[in-house]
Order: sequence, then C-alpha cells, then structure tokens
Amino acid sequence: MPINETAATVITAFDNIPAPAHGLVRDLRVRWALEEIGRDYCPQYLDAMKPKSDGYRDWQPYGQVPAFTDGDQRLFESGAILLYLGEQDERLLPRDPAGRWAATTWLIAALNSVEPKLMQIINLDFFQAGKPWAKDARPSAVKMARMSLASTEKALGQQDWFAGPFSIADIMMTTVLRNLNHTDILDNFPTLTAYKSRAEARPAFQRALADQLSAYRKPAPAEEG
Amino acid sequence: MPINETAATVITAFDNIPAPAHGLVRDLRVRWALEEIGRDYCPQYLDAMKPKSDGYRDWQPYGQVPAFTDGDQRLFESGAILLYLGEQDERLLPRDPAGRWAATTWLIAALNSVEPKLMQIINLDFFQAGKPWAKDARPSAVKMARMSLASTEKALGQQDWFAGPFSIADIMMTTVLRNLNHTDILDNFPTLTAYKSRAEARPAFQRALADQLSAYRKPAPAEEG
Repeated sequence: MPINETAATVITAFDNIPAPAHGLVRDLRVRWALEEIGRDYCPQYLDAMKPKSDGYRDWQPYGQVPAFTDGDQRLFESGAILLYLGEQDERLLPRDPAGRWAATTWLIAALNSVEPKLMQIINLDFFQAGKPWAKDARPSAVKMARMSLASTEKALGQQDWFAGPFSIADIMMTTVLRNLNHTDILDNFPTLTAYKSRAEARPAFQRALADQLSAYRKPAPAEEG
Repeated sequence: MPINETAATVITAFDNIPAPAHGLVRDLRVRWALEEIGRDYCPQYLDAMKPKSDGYRDWQPYGQVPAFTDGDQRLFESGAILLYLGEQDERLLPRDPAGRWAATTWLIAALNSVEPKLMQIINLDFFQAGKPWAKDARPSAVKMARMSLASTEKALGQQDWFAGPFSIADIMMTTVLRNLNHTDILDNFPTLTAYKSRAEARPAFQRALADQLSAYRKPAPAEEG
C-alpha cells in the first residue's frame, strides 16, 4: 500500500494516438504492475497528437506517458515507476538481494540492451515509412535486433521468468518485445515467443491491455481485439 | 563498503577497441562511481574485437562491458550497477525518498529517453558510415536527438545536478551526453554543455577517464588526452 493511503494512485495515459501504437504505449507497463498487486488507480488522459502544457512537462519533461503519483512521490519513466512499485510489493520485486538485483538488472537490460534496437525498427516502419532510405536502412536494424534477441533468448534458457519468480523485469521485457508485433522477427526465437505468450496470458496483463485499449477514441487494430 | 569486505570489487572493461570509442565505453560510468566514493576496484580486461566466451556471457549475456562483482552480487548493465552502488553510499544516491527517486528517474531517463537517440547518431556516423543511406538518415536522427536534448535541458533549468546533490543520475547523463563528442550538436544547448563540463571537471571523473584510456593498447584521440 502507498504510505499516504488517502491519496489516489494516478497515472497518465493517452486517449488518442494513431492505431499502430494501440497496445504498445508505456502506460501499459504501469497498469499491468498495478493489476498484478490489485491496486486501484485513476488514469488521467492526454491527447498524444496535441502539444503538452508546461504544467505537464514539469511532471513528465519529455511530454510522454506514463507519469505517476501516489501522493508520496511524483515520478516519470516507466522503468523508475516499476522499480518504485516493486519496492512496495514482493509480488513485483523479490525481497532477497540476489532476486532483487537480478530483476533490476533485467529490467534495465530490457530498457537499454533490447528496446533501443526494437524501437529502431518501429522508427523505420512507422515514423520514417515512405522515406527512400528507410527501406535500405532496415536490414542492418533487423540484424542488430536479432543479435540482441539471440543473447536475450539464450540468457532466459529454460527459465519461466528472467529473475526467478515473475517480476517487473518480465513486465518490462514482455512489453518491450511487443514492439515487434507488426513483424515476424520474433518467430525465429521460439523460447522468447513462448515467454511472451506466457506473460501475456496472465489475467493482470489482459485486464491492463483491455483498459488501455478501451480508452482510445478510435478502434484498435484487429490483432489487439 | 561491500558486505563481503574480503572480496575485491571487480569490473570488466576493454583493453582493445577502435579509437572512436575511447572514452565512451560504459565501464567509465562504474569507474567514476567507484572513484567518487574512493573504493578500490580491479579491472578485468577483454578484447572488444574478439568473441566472448560462454563463461563471460553467463555473466554479461550481451558480451558487453561492464560486468561487476563484489563477492555479494554479480551484476551487469551499467544502470543496474550504478543503482546498486548508490544504495551503498549516499554520496551516489540521496537517502531521502524524494531525492532517491528523482535520481533513479533521471538515471533511467538518461538510459531510455536520451541515450537511444544519441546512439542512433553514433550508429550512423561510425557503424553505418559509408553506406549510401546513412547520410540521408542523419537529419531525422539529429532532429530526434535535438528534441530529447531540448526537453532535458529545460528540465535541468538552473540546477547544478538533476536530483539535488550530485548523484548516479549525473554520472549516467554526463556519460550519455559524451556520445555526441564527435559532433557539434551539443553546442546549441549551452545549459547542458555547462552541466557536462561541470561534471567532467570532477576529480573522480578525471581519474576514471585516465584509468580507462591508459588501458587501451592503441593511443586515444587527441580530444581525450
């Protein structure tokens, strides 16, 4: 429970964003963590297509979502919010030092050793789509993504989760891997594919995804239905 | 002090890597943190140009540096190692919750909201240099980097450091900004330029950089001298 039990837990999310991003926006990570521990929260919605106020940028300097407050701390960066929630509930972050630091390490590996490679594919396929050079740039981006995925898959090995029990490391890694949903790149990594399916089958993930998608004013793509 | 005071603190680093990477490799972050708190450590060197053993990949699954051990925990990811060291010494991570979570948030912002944009420029300028499309891809990469830097500079404002006192957030942000050393992009951000100079002037940074550079078998570029 938050220390300040009288204050609501508030996260920011978008209620308007282009359809390809539906199911991928990072508030999903925080919604999922809160669902895993059964904590109520209140979404505060912004339009991704409109400029953000200076007031919002005081809270989230990059104008992105999610930002978070529970009356005690006001945070941004999904990775920092997950670490903060993890310290409050051992269902999100193991209490023993070895488990705790393994989960912290894998959360950061997902954010820094995997996600940037996958976001480069998102960048080429969506933000730079149609530019003449984007097609030529893609093979090297895919190659770098595959190298990162191969190392990640090997490290997971026969484990169900990255740091012993299910943890914030798995919330982060699964939502990072979802950035390839529009491609077939993950098909070559059966262990990671099974891992992602295992995580996405969790009721807390399903509730978080349904809540995120229900807020969008435009219909979500069929794959997210 | 580490809990296991009889064990040495060991980090991995490269002793052979192409000259453009000299002064940029991420072991610098951990060396700097250890210098700030005056803790001795033992570098264990690898050759960046040679394949890594399975044994090393058990420790650092991506075959990168730094990896870390102090006899209690074996970690990888510079962000996780800095968080771990931060918990051991308040000169690296404030003890009050507001300061602690601000520093954690900014460490992750540096890793996830800033570094990927700057690494895309490194990728185009070094790893993809000479490919016909790399020149055409650069303007959009520079634009995205500038947007991230503008938000970062505005958030720093008139503060000396990102989270009150100097912290691991500043070690991370400064070493991230150094990825633009080969460009003039930071010249348009005088507040960030002054911040980076202030951080690089710290004796602990100077010792860490000198130690990193002294290990390379080939001479460093003049700018790092």
